[in-house]
Amino acid sequence: MPADRACDVIGWCRALARHSEEPGFTTRTFLSAPMRAVHADLSAWMARAGMDVRVDAAGNLRGVYPGSSPDAATLFIGSHLDTVPHAGAFDGVLGVVIGIMLVDMLEGRRLPFSIEVVGFSEEEGVRFGVPFIGSRALAGTLDEDLLGRRDAAGIRVSDAIREFGLDPSRLGAARAADRAIGYFELHIEQGPLLEALELPLGVVDAIAGQSRVDVAFTGTSGHAGTTPMHARRDALAGAAEWIGHVEREAAGTRGLVATVGRIDALPGATNVIAGTCRASLDIRHADDGIRIAARNRLGDAAREMASRRGLTLDWDVRLDQAAVKMNRRLAAMLTRAVERTGMRAVALTSGAGHDAMIVAGRMPAAMLMLRSPGGISHHPSESVLDDDVAAALAAGGAFLEELARTARD
Amino acid sequence: MPADRACDVIGWCRALARHSEEPGFTTRTFLSAPMRAVHADLSAWMARAGMDVRVDAAGNLRGVYPGSSPDAATLFIGSHLDTVPHAGAFDGVLGVVIGIMLVDMLEGRRLPFSIEVVGFSEEEGVRFGVPFIGSRALAGTLDEDLLGRRDAAGIRVSDAIREFGLDPSRLGAARAADRAIGYFELHIEQGPLLEALELPLGVVDAIAGQSRVDVAFTGTSGHAGTTPMHARRDALAGAAEWIGHVEREAAGTRGLVATVGRIDALPGATNVIAGTCRASLDIRHADDGIRIAARNRLGDAAREMASRRGLTLDWDVRLDQAAVKMNRRLAAMLTRAVERTGMRAVALTSGAGHDAMIVAGRMPAAMLMLRSPGGISHHPSESVLDDDVAAALAAGGAFLEELARTARD
Repeated sequence: MPADRACDVIGWCRALARHSEEPGFTTRTFLSAPMRAVHADLSAWMARAGMDVRVDAAGNLRGVYPGSSPDAATLFIGSHLDTVPHAGAFDGVLGVVIGIMLVDMLEGRRLPFSIEVVGFSEEEGVRFGVPFIGSRALAGTLDEDLLGRRDAAGIRVSDAIREFGLDPSRLGAARAADRAIGYFELHIEQGPLLEALELPLGVVDAIAGQSRVDVAFTGTSGHAGTTPMHARRDALAGAAEWIGHVEREAAGTRGLVATVGRIDALPGATNVIAGTCRASLDIRHADDGIRIAARNRLGDAAREMASRRGLTLDWDVRLDQAAVKMNRRLAAMLTRAVERTGMRAVALTSGAGHDAMIVAGRMPAAMLMLRSPGGISHHPSESVLDDDVAAALAAGGAFLEELARTARD
Repeated sequence: MPADRACDVIGWCRALARHSEEPGFTTRTFLSAPMRAVHADLSAWMARAGMDVRVDAAGNLRGVYPGSSPDAATLFIGSHLDTVPHAGAFDGVLGVVIGIMLVDMLEGRRLPFSIEVVGFSEEEGVRFGVPFIGSRALAGTLDEDLLGRRDAAGIRVSDAIREFGLDPSRLGAARAADRAIGYFELHIEQGPLLEALELPLGVVDAIAGQSRVDVAFTGTSGHAGTTPMHARRDALAGAAEWIGHVEREAAGTRGLVATVGRIDALPGATNVIAGTCRASLDIRHADDGIRIAARNRLGDAAREMASRRGLTLDWDVRLDQAAVKMNRRLAAMLTRAVERTGMRAVALTSGAGHDAMIVAGRMPAAMLMLRSPGGISHHPSESVLDDDVAAALAAGGAFLEELARTARD
């Protein structure tokens, strides 16, 4: 019964959330000790569903459910097992657990393709400041620079792999085999759109492109009591004007989100005019042209405001990541699968990055989003509805049948 | 010659600036080790000018130049010897050195009043977070609460006094004797007004009142990629709108200065909408009614913006300090003294707090401001012009003569 299986899925996710680096919270970074316990639990469930299980050199947990013939191509189903600090129980893990449950629902029946369920070791970028270490290994795009990065304790990625009992020289073998049908990821939306539409599921058409800019306004610090307003070159006042502009620009451009989430005024004293104000800009859109144009307009506005106020501006573009389209054919099949279960299938652009974005460079990729109650994620109160998980299991099962039919044709 | 004496004053200040807790910078907090060296140098100069020198139990250096009769009343001349971190060479110290030089210029001649030059031990509030420890002792308003405060190392004010070799039980004796003519403080302006007027000196009519408010906007943190603009409750965007309003309110009210110098957005990550934003407000005006009305309007504006944005507002008034008027009679005499030396005397309101503000509660007080090149203070490049110091010495000398004439009448 999908309803019972949905309850099991949620129960498993909640149980896995107890494997944490911090008592009372769910915090589980790349190759941390509690990741072993997660691997142990998932391995047992994978084996019970008839899968051969291994951990690759990047720390990804991989369970293979063989197809009807030895030379069958592979469908990958996956998401990530690491979390942000003080996380919820569903971001990432849910997609892995549903993957296992979809295999379990086959009850030993063979499909014309193998299924490999992957629990990626690293997606959030918490430990090394770089996300997607697990999916990069699968895609074969994990470079030497990244392996040399150090965490806060000074440990390199390659050392962390060794300390977990794995062999970094075998990272090449983590790469997905050439005979891949595609990649299928299920993930909570982490936003309010499906809830607003009163729909349990959405089919992702693209993962939004993203720019990040470090912005610094520099003026002159001064005495808050003795410097008249007209004689000030107040860096924080300049930044504040620009932040208002960022908000209006995004609100006025359909589909654009722009966020200033980090701000730092120096010297940062109550009675001193800020001489420097640093802030971050995060800007995202499904259309790269719209994003870049908006980014440039915001830079022009910052320069104009700085110049008018006698401030100098540093505008340092740290990231320009293009939008990644999901595979059209797979998305259409996924949409049909959702509709076959009697639900409306809405197309969504994901504002968040996901492993699918990385894997899409290697094989066709598709994503199914589950509604996030309250839009809440990256927080202990993150949740998912039983009925929505049941709907995802039904749609996922129908998607596998659709793929099997196509493979046989 | 006033010009030679002005050079000496500046040279002495620069020499004293080398007595510091930090090599390469001038940082000298209350009862710190380098304060002993400052006391030693100043004591030698005071003694040479004919003064009896002592250090009171609050660490104030006090040199008495006797008047023409044993029962003569006392004119206090002073400023502070402590500094902010990475200070300039003139904030505070200049007023003490000029005081000594004014006595030296008498060349042993007796006036109908004694002169007591005071180098206050503490004005900046750096070590214990509370300013004016030295002048409070002179005014007799140093309370028990303050003596129990601890610095960052956990040392109490009373312990610091003991460690410096002084006796906190004798603090009562630091109080100024009842027979005081008044208090005269010379200080750099620390602002741009005199420079803009092309004048070396200003006579202070009042020290502005000040309010400080801790402001916090609270919304909901959220994912910068998945939360559409219309669904956000962005605490930093709310704070930014209000900061713009603070700036416009102050610019539109004559004599008002308002500053947001400290801001903190939480969680403070590039890709997370700020759920909380805390900021400081510092607002000053010579007229308490205007200041309080402006403070209230800024609170109303913050509440309106928070409400419109679905944010909550905390508005915590931390300080409401009334403006302090300087003594009218002394200010008029000081103005005449400046004019007698052939200069224009402009009346100034001090936006910064000074020891005169505290001492004014005990005796008539007057302040003479010296032009600050570039308006720069609390910075190693803080300076003062030779000619302006010469003008201050001339005006200060004329002020003493005027006082002597009045005392004799």
